[in-house]
Amino acid sequence: MNRDLADATVAIVGLGLMGGSLAAALSARHACNRVVGVARRRVTCETARELRFIDRGTCDLAEGVAEADIVVLAMPVGEILATVPLLGPLLKPGCLVTDVGSTKHAICAALDALPAALQAVGGHPMCGKETSGLSVAEPTLYEGRVYVLCPLARTSPGALGLARSLVEAVGARPVLLEAERHDHAVAAISHLPYTLAVALVNAVSALAASDPACLELAAGGYRDSTRLASSDLQMMRDILMTNREPLLEALHGAQVELGRLEDALCRGDTAALVALLQAAHNHRREMMR
Amino acid sequence: MNRDLADATVAIVGLGLMGGSLAAALSARHACNRVVGVARRRVTCETARELRFIDRGTCDLAEGVAEADIVVLAMPVGEILATVPLLGPLLKPGCLVTDVGSTKHAICAALDALPAALQAVGGHPMCGKETSGLSVAEPTLYEGRVYVLCPLARTSPGALGLARSLVEAVGARPVLLEAERHDHAVAAISHLPYTLAVALVNAVSALAASDPACLELAAGGYRDSTRLASSDLQMMRDILMTNREPLLEALHGAQVELGRLEDALCRGDTAALVALLQAAHNHRREMMR
Repeated sequence: MNRDLADATVAIVGLGLMGGSLAAALSARHACNRVVGVARRRVTCETARELRFIDRGTCDLAEGVAEADIVVLAMPVGEILATVPLLGPLLKPGCLVTDVGSTKHAICAALDALPAALQAVGGHPMCGKETSGLSVAEPTLYEGRVYVLCPLARTSPGALGLARSLVEAVGARPVLLEAERHDHAVAAISHLPYTLAVALVNAVSALAASDPACLELAAGGYRDSTRLASSDLQMMRDILMTNREPLLEALHGAQVELGRLEDALCRGDTAALVALLQAAHNHRREMMR
Repeated sequence: MNRDLADATVAIVGLGLMGGSLAAALSARHACNRVVGVARRRVTCETARELRFIDRGTCDLAEGVAEADIVVLAMPVGEILATVPLLGPLLKPGCLVTDVGSTKHAICAALDALPAALQAVGGHPMCGKETSGLSVAEPTLYEGRVYVLCPLARTSPGALGLARSLVEAVGARPVLLEAERHDHAVAAISHLPYTLAVALVNAVSALAASDPACLELAAGGYRDSTRLASSDLQMMRDILMTNREPLLEALHGAQVELGRLEDALCRGDTAALVALLQAAHNHRREMMR
């Protein structure tokens, strides 16, 4: 395996926001020998080439990954899961397979089933936007962000080192985490907020059906609180369906907290209510430090 | 009663974000004859004078409102409720009393108990910031915003006209609404999002206690989703405690929606889950149009 990123050919499968930005960052920083882009549509490859995000583009997965030292799967989780089992016969021995999917348990299990001659590390950069596609990709997307790496038991130190180099090359900070811990953490700080935003919008929509004044009064606070409900549907469906157990646990936690607030309101217990509001106020201040 | 805003002396009680911005807008637009500010601390009066937000400032409520044609109460809801009953003996006959409090049922009931010689209209401008105080006040805060007016049965057409003039003078759009309808609407689009943010922060905090990785991974999405949990505590306590019934109804609606999402996840029912996500996606797009 080629352990030096500078000499590596990196194939990025999927040239949307995440893949396009990764290609852009690697190219802008001359971090590797060659960036090959694989996209479903020819026009995406052409655009990525014109933007100098990639050296070469193709719609053919086999052709795109054939010479790769590193393959980065940058599609929605469902497509990553469908693609990993196809890779075995297509890759050079020693090639490192990684991904940018938002849940890691199912993907790492799929990576673990790759032929022994290949290397694999799960990945999840903690960045993104509410918009998607190559048109919003930018070489600075990863700068200063946490980029989770989930090594498998079979991952060699050299492969992990190469994955680290890739992360650091685009300006991100690698954080090693087991897939299970990663999935529980993102269930809490990412999938739970999304789920609450969906519930909020659907609840307000039901209330607004009996009085449209609701919507006339909605201001900036409501817009911000519900922003996540506009996330890409296919992406979120895959994320939630591959992280059901941790999300259900987090949802349970949120319902317990909602029950506490409801109870204090029901009883008109100002002191109990203030204690809950104060706790959240303090927790957020500490978190955001 | 003086029905022409241009000739009116306006006393604003409370020179924080809302009151300070109202004073600033009236003064900048030369919308009335005189703006008197009433604040607890002398330094606030002095600063408001230096900024030319007010013509005169005082810490004495009786002195500040004695010559007023319009009194605007711009404090947290609890202080408004404590102040209204004191006003009767302090005001000129025909003086219009209004407020900027975020809930209207309790305040309108208090206004309704004022002496018959006074006029009263409840008010709630749909603007604000997560920060508070005179230092963040600005003359443009109300521009283009919805400003709810809740006339009482006893409100004269002239008094309502004067309240409308005040709202329009600061660039806002008056929307007439009964107190009950207002309170149900803001429970849904404002107090429910706040309550969900509090529950989210407290739930994540509990989950993070068993694995601090949660907080290390928290990115911009989490910061935005929880922003409301950092709202001013006294303000939110008063708002929630004076809007318990509508908020409990809205909370129930949110829990029903959370239950639906939980059920779809539990059963692994992708189609049911997608239908809920899609509904929220569509609702939000329609709302934000």
